Amino acid sequence: MSVEVIAIGGYEEVGKNMSAVKVGDDVVIFDMGIHLDRVHIHEDTDIARMHSLDLIERGVIPDDTLMKDVDGKVRAIVFTHGHLDHIGAVAKLAHRYQAPIIATPYTIALIERTIKAERKFNVLNTLQVLNAGEKCQISPGITLEFIQSTHSIPQSVIAALHTPEGIIVYALDFKFDDHQKISPPPDYHRLRELGRKGVLAMIVETTRANEKQEVKTHSEKVARIVLEDIMKNPLEEKTGMIVTTFSSHMERIQAISDIASKSDRQMLLLGRSMERYCGLAEAMGILKLPENASIYGSPKAVNRALARAEAKREDYLLITTGHQGEPDALLPRIANAKTQFRIQRGDNVVISAPVIPNPMNVANRNLMERRLASSGARIYTNAHVSGHAGREDHRDFIRMLNPMHIIPAHGDLSMLSAYAEIAEEEGYKLGNDIHILRNGQAQVFNGGIR
Amino acid sequence: MSVEVIAIGGYEEVGKNMSAVKVGDDVVIFDMGIHLDRVHIHEDTDIARMHSLDLIERGVIPDDTLMKDVDGKVRAIVFTHGHLDHIGAVAKLAHRYQAPIIATPYTIALIERTIKAERKFNVLNTLQVLNAGEKCQISPGITLEFIQSTHSIPQSVIAALHTPEGIIVYALDFKFDDHQKISPPPDYHRLRELGRKGVLAMIVETTRANEKQEVKTHSEKVARIVLEDIMKNPLEEKTGMIVTTFSSHMERIQAISDIASKSDRQMLLLGRSMERYCGLAEAMGILKLPENASIYGSPKAVNRALARAEAKREDYLLITTGHQGEPDALLPRIANAKTQFRIQRGDNVVISAPVIPNPMNVANRNLMERRLASSGARIYTNAHVSGHAGREDHRDFIRMLNPMHIIPAHGDLSMLSAYAEIAEEEGYKLGNDIHILRNGQAQVFNGGIR
Amino acid sequence: MSVEVIAIGGYEEVGKNMSAVKVGDDVVIFDMGIHLDRVHIHEDTDIARMHSLDLIERGVIPDDTLMKDVDGKVRAIVFTHGHLDHIGAVAKLAHRYQAPIIATPYTIALIERTIKAERKFNVLNTLQVLNAGEKCQISPGITLEFIQSTHSIPQSVIAALHTPEGIIVYALDFKFDDHQKISPPPDYHRLRELGRKGVLAMIVETTRANEKQEVKTHSEKVARIVLEDIMKNPLEEKTGMIVTTFSSHMERIQAISDIASKSDRQMLLLGRSMERYCGLAEAMGILKLPENASIYGSPKAVNRALARAEAKREDYLLITTGHQGEPDALLPRIANAKTQFRIQRGDNVVISAPVIPNPMNVANRNLMERRLASSGARIYTNAHVSGHAGREDHRDFIRMLNPMHIIPAHGDLSMLSAYAEIAEEEGYKLGNDIHILRNGQAQVFNGGIR
Amino acid sequence: MSVEVIAIGGYEEVGKNMSAVKVGDDVVIFDMGIHLDRVHIHEDTDIARMHSLDLIERGVIPDDTLMKDVDGKVRAIVFTHGHLDHIGAVAKLAHRYQAPIIATPYTIALIERTIKAERKFNVLNTLQVLNAGEKCQISPGITLEFIQSTHSIPQSVIAALHTPEGIIVYALDFKFDDHQKISPPPDYHRLRELGRKGVLAMIVETTRANEKQEVKTHSEKVARIVLEDIMKNPLEEKTGMIVTTFSSHMERIQAISDIASKSDRQMLLLGRSMERYCGLAEAMGILKLPENASIYGSPKAVNRALARAEAKREDYLLITTGHQGEPDALLPRIANAKTQFRIQRGDNVVISAPVIPNPMNVANRNLMERRLASSGARIYTNAHVSGHAGREDHRDFIRMLNPMHIIPAHGDLSMLSAYAEIAEEEGYKLGNDIHILRNGQAQVFNGGIR
Repeated sequence: MSVEVIAIGGYEEVGKNMSAVKVGDDVVIFDMGIHLDRVHIHEDTDIARMHSLDLIERGVIPDDTLMKDVDGKVRAIVFTHGHLDHIGAVAKLAHRYQAPIIATPYTIALIERTIKAERKFNVLNTLQVLNAGEKCQISPGITLEFIQSTHSIPQSVIAALHTPEGIIVYALDFKFDDHQKISPPPDYHRLRELGRKGVLAMIVETTRANEKQEVKTHSEKVARIVLEDIMKNPLEEKTGMIVTTFSSHMERIQAISDIASKSDRQMLLLGRSMERYCGLAEAMGILKLPENASIYGSPKAVNRALARAEAKREDYLLITTGHQGEPDALLPRIANAKTQFRIQRGDNVVISAPVIPNPMNVANRNLMERRLASSGARIYTNAHVSGHAGREDHRDFIRMLNPMHIIPAHGDLSMLSAYAEIAEEEGYKLGNDIHILRNGQAQVFNGGIR
Repeated sequence: MSVEVIAIGGYEEVGKNMSAVKVGDDVVIFDMGIHLDRVHIHEDTDIARMHSLDLIERGVIPDDTLMKDVDGKVRAIVFTHGHLDHIGAVAKLAHRYQAPIIATPYTIALIERTIKAERKFNVLNTLQVLNAGEKCQISPGITLEFIQSTHSIPQSVIAALHTPEGIIVYALDFKFDDHQKISPPPDYHRLRELGRKGVLAMIVETTRANEKQEVKTHSEKVARIVLEDIMKNPLEEKTGMIVTTFSSHMERIQAISDIASKSDRQMLLLGRSMERYCGLAEAMGILKLPENASIYGSPKAVNRALARAEAKREDYLLITTGHQGEPDALLPRIANAKTQFRIQRGDNVVISAPVIPNPMNVANRNLMERRLASSGARIYTNAHVSGHAGREDHRDFIRMLNPMHIIPAHGDLSMLSAYAEIAEEEGYKLGNDIHILRNGQAQVFNGGIR
Repeated sequence: MSVEVIAIGGYEEVGKNMSAVKVGDDVVIFDMGIHLDRVHIHEDTDIARMHSLDLIERGVIPDDTLMKDVDGKVRAIVFTHGHLDHIGAVAKLAHRYQAPIIATPYTIALIERTIKAERKFNVLNTLQVLNAGEKCQISPGITLEFIQSTHSIPQSVIAALHTPEGIIVYALDFKFDDHQKISPPPDYHRLRELGRKGVLAMIVETTRANEKQEVKTHSEKVARIVLEDIMKNPLEEKTGMIVTTFSSHMERIQAISDIASKSDRQMLLLGRSMERYCGLAEAMGILKLPENASIYGSPKAVNRALARAEAKREDYLLITTGHQGEPDALLPRIANAKTQFRIQRGDNVVISAPVIPNPMNVANRNLMERRLASSGARIYTNAHVSGHAGREDHRDFIRMLNPMHIIPAHGDLSMLSAYAEIAEEEGYKLGNDIHILRNGQAQVFNGGIR
Repeated sequence: MSVEVIAIGGYEEVGKNMSAVKVGDDVVIFDMGIHLDRVHIHEDTDIARMHSLDLIERGVIPDDTLMKDVDGKVRAIVFTHGHLDHIGAVAKLAHRYQAPIIATPYTIALIERTIKAERKFNVLNTLQVLNAGEKCQISPGITLEFIQSTHSIPQSVIAALHTPEGIIVYALDFKFDDHQKISPPPDYHRLRELGRKGVLAMIVETTRANEKQEVKTHSEKVARIVLEDIMKNPLEEKTGMIVTTFSSHMERIQAISDIASKSDRQMLLLGRSMERYCGLAEAMGILKLPENASIYGSPKAVNRALARAEAKREDYLLITTGHQGEPDALLPRIANAKTQFRIQRGDNVVISAPVIPNPMNVANRNLMERRLASSGARIYTNAHVSGHAGREDHRDFIRMLNPMHIIPAHGDLSMLSAYAEIAEEEGYKLGNDIHILRNGQAQVFNGGIR
């Protein structure tokens, strides 16, 4: 029985991830993401209302039209975490396949929301929950397993497909973090076990493969310490205080909340996507906020909350969207004096997020910071650790799984190549057992693991 | 008689240059520029209609309010070239002083235009032409001399103020280029002569002081060769062709025109500022375009020209504004498919300008290039040389003038400091005979040159 | 009574720090450091045997010859911590002054060693211990106080000179770290108290002033967590293991020791400077090593220890010198197969130190890492936090002390300028109350604090 | 008949290039270079006396042991230019093959010298000259053609192998320079003709593939203008003057000589490799020096020449080796005061070479420049253009040749990948018709061009 990995999206860019694994006649799809960066090229892109084929042409979602030539039956669509570059195209593509959607509860909840917001397509696939540590039968010969992992959104897992020819591991995206508060540590024991059982191939993220200086990604515990040190004085000052971070990063938001809850300030989580991710997480018991914390997403509610905060700034801690300076997000709007909360001399702003390296983010963030500073705010910026594995983490991962074949994914060619160099240092060889695929190409494995 | 150099603007930023030199009771002002970068902080800034004091508060123009405390009479307002960071505030500030405006003919013509466009103030100062190589009496004891220089706009000069206490040299901005076609080489002979007569102080630009790798700025002759090599094939291809460069850079536009005039393409110079600078320059006999070349500035005329070019793209060479990707300029609008001229596969775009290093330019330019490329254009970008002196040019300049005192200007503190390091290598010492001033500070020289 | 700060060394470079403060007729000297970087220019420099004047000419030690023109009596030579760029020239310069040497116990012990190793001069100054939190009378009008601080060597302090004209604070070098295990947190309370009493001037380090991204320097607690995560697996593997870090960084070595002591490996601290700093620190009760740990400094003892480790590599943890790849230090010699301990495939090397940014270090470190890797070692490099205040720490420091005047020190002009920019953001102005001095210049304060 | 490209060396590094092309039973080898960088890892490497297998193990020369498994007869060993990373291993490897060595006259002369200097092996292969524009029959079915090209050493060619299955082009290394004085422009006409006849595959250099800012490599004409501008004043000053550049770069040395010959200075070309390359080139009529120029290579002759120059420095122009600061080369030795020529204040040093980007070069060059500067020399550094094609040149090259398959070579994986990106922009696809090989891998083309 031949096994085939089909690269649909995310093999030429950071974004719009989608891969398919074909085992005999059964096909399993992993991820259906969007590539937000492409939206800037065509300013008139309206994702919710546009048809898949238009979005495919604009490079916004994966081009899955090649799937019609794949001779097999799609048995499952699997999502390993809930970031938009992994689930964002679900409402545009999933209805084409008669197969259940499988993911962890938080990811399922986010997918459900995405499907509800869709204006163009009616998505009726079954939504099936699978927890980390659990397995489910996909077809007579194939079992899907979710292995506990850590990343920067709750309930991220590494997926393993048990097939007659060996195990296929799908590891987009992960970090090895033993000190998160919401997520247990990655299940290294099980990963090693899989390695011993026989991994035919692994598909692996490459986000930080070319960052040669950062060997092992720092734990969230580091971010917690840094945030504690940074937030300590501002929380006690009689001035305004804003923290901004990724709205889906519950681990970080929990840390911020834990630190803030020792002060007298009341937390206001503000912004539409803050409501989306935190609201869900709180309802599901993932995020634990103090009783007096509030989450507001609608413009009206946000405005009212900002007006209250403006009236008595030292009583509140605002946690907002807008860490990249995106013009329509909340913090940039505050910086640009477009809300009722006006920055005053002495206000403190903590940006617990890096600049996602892209010239427009660099420009937007710079403009936001200059506006904040010119209104008198003090800005703190180095309170962040990455959610992606570093080079030495990848080395550990390869050694644990000991796969026969490696397929780097989720990056442009320079990133896939940088990963290939790590794998070559570990004894693999590009073209032999490391395979760099381009969107639309497939890699066939004829002999499985015996 | 004491001499005083008063730093009004441009000592804490690249932009809004303005300095005053007070000799006894006579004051000479150099430059009244704007700082366009500050406009982005306050989006609602409408320069033409705003009052000086508002613009001063927003950091857009120099804060010359300190001049009311200067006990002396302003005898002249001198401009050494026509870039906006040197002349752009003339219509906001000049009317406060009863003194003639003195500049070379092209600069005077640009100032005249600026004054005419002003909506708020009525500027009635006399406009007085002084050519390179000429002198004029400013007051009984003070003579102003313009020395032939080279930069990236025609008729740039270095100014020398002959005073009883020695010569004051004002050298913002210059490069040493012996091979320009429009401008004669800098008058090194006269600079050395001034050095021997006795320079009390020089005020000098620092644009490239911290570029440690670029020792002597390359001549425009280098840009000409590079442009010839780049433009040769595209001119002959049956596809569209666009060149963009600084609209005030006549030397470069002349080079482009000379190269293009050997082909069968007709040149269209398009965009409002292209018309402003090139129209004037052509009328004054500075720029010599082939007979079939046309310049269009108004949106309507530009649109008609673009429609013609769209119809028969291989017959035209478009020379447009927009090298920084500024959203409202022409090339970015073409890239964004907002004009009748649509980029097609195979069209060639030559960007003969560097990215002016500022995050918003980097982002805009990147977006423009990606749009052009995604429509199929081929882009050439390394066809440029700087218009500013490099470190070794500055060293030569110091050795020629041998000034008693040096005041670096036209930069932030890191640039002024980098210049101070060059001067220290030449035997000067910060605090003794190198003076770093901040906007609003003055340096008094009590003993002149004997 | 006038107060004068005299910049002797360290105002044009990172290294050879030396400053003098003159209050009336009394002079207090701070630091006498060396500038090791200059030794590379003159390869034949033999510090221990050369005369001060030769070393001064070569730029290796501060040029204190100007002190003979200072009309006053040196009352004390004060050292605030024991790094070589602060104490390294003590044996070359101190004997010229009839004044006691004052420092904390660990610093005094290091100075004593330096004096004993000197071959050229006989240094007989009294060595006087002053602990953090203590004061001593220097002259009838002047009292010296040591304030608890944190840095990357034990018993670092910030010095305050109480004079009739106000307090002079000397803060080279420090970080704000509330979580060190060896040092208590900085005494913020006392710093604020000094601020309220009236600080006439502060002399302050600028090491990280131009690192715009690093706002608050991370605590050593971060390094501890990172080291724990990195060292965990290697400690358990049956392979060789080496950690290298700064030999004077007791806080870090303590952390490494604490982590290692939970494993079965025996610690060997190897290398001459490792013995120098750790031997002293252990003897003084500062560093607490497990019973079975050993420190070896002499080549013979080191060789024997390495032979033992080679015989049974999984039983030892080697802690060595050589983190910069300096050819004669231990780790580079191991990497170059010049010792009995040979790197084998699977050995782990943890480099808990950044590359000190200088092209020769970059080259040496790169060569060492490539040699280690080509022998099969796995290298971990990002386990470090800085020992110097970041921009926001400096902002806090200025707000605590609220000094009348600021003198940035310990850097080249670009660093002093970068610090000046921070101070300008805090309301000071260069030339008014921020003073950039060059080696050999003095700043006089005529009116003190009332 | 199948065609196979075998990657022997240079596919994982910049250096030790060697490729083989097998057409049916006939094999043609291209290049046998060395990888000097690897020598630093093993300090005791003595190339001239070491055996091939040892050098292979150390990574210094290509591992051609795989050739024993290639079922075919080597018909020719072809060298397309004389740089060491292409010819340096000829004396270690060529004797293993019974085949003639084919190259242009200057390259043959350099190979002859290399063979004569060899201590370990006796190389007896026939040396056969082939000029640019000529062809020679290699076997009944295969013809070799040399096409006129340009690079940074004289008589560089692009090789074309005409086979029954199509043409194989070998293009390591080249630039497109229409304005060299020694070499005619590249034969674009013939390249286009080959493209029309049918290129099965091209093997192409990638040196600058990842330099995204440099689109078309500047012509040597640019270097000439820049050197003229830089050298003009120094040639007339009454001080010492040194120029250093690549000793094999005849085009550059000719330019320097042409500029210098208009002055009164006598040229001394000094250093062993200067003698090697320039002596040969002058003897062969390639380099034309003025009558009073002299070339000295032996230490004794160099010393005597330096003594003369020291006695009357304003009469000479020294052209030396040592542009990378390599400790044993001449200019670094002068900088370190180890020769009789001592740098004095006012001497001018022109470094007409970039820092070859490698940490040890960066360090050596920095140290040399600091030493020169600290002795009072003035240093000019930006007088260089690259000898390698830029991204847009590569695009032109692909369009001219229109090959069925592309094999990027002469670089590490990141460079091969960067080239692949250019090729993908031109419509190729990695894995389909772009093939990234690792050392030791082969690519078989089964269907040729019809």
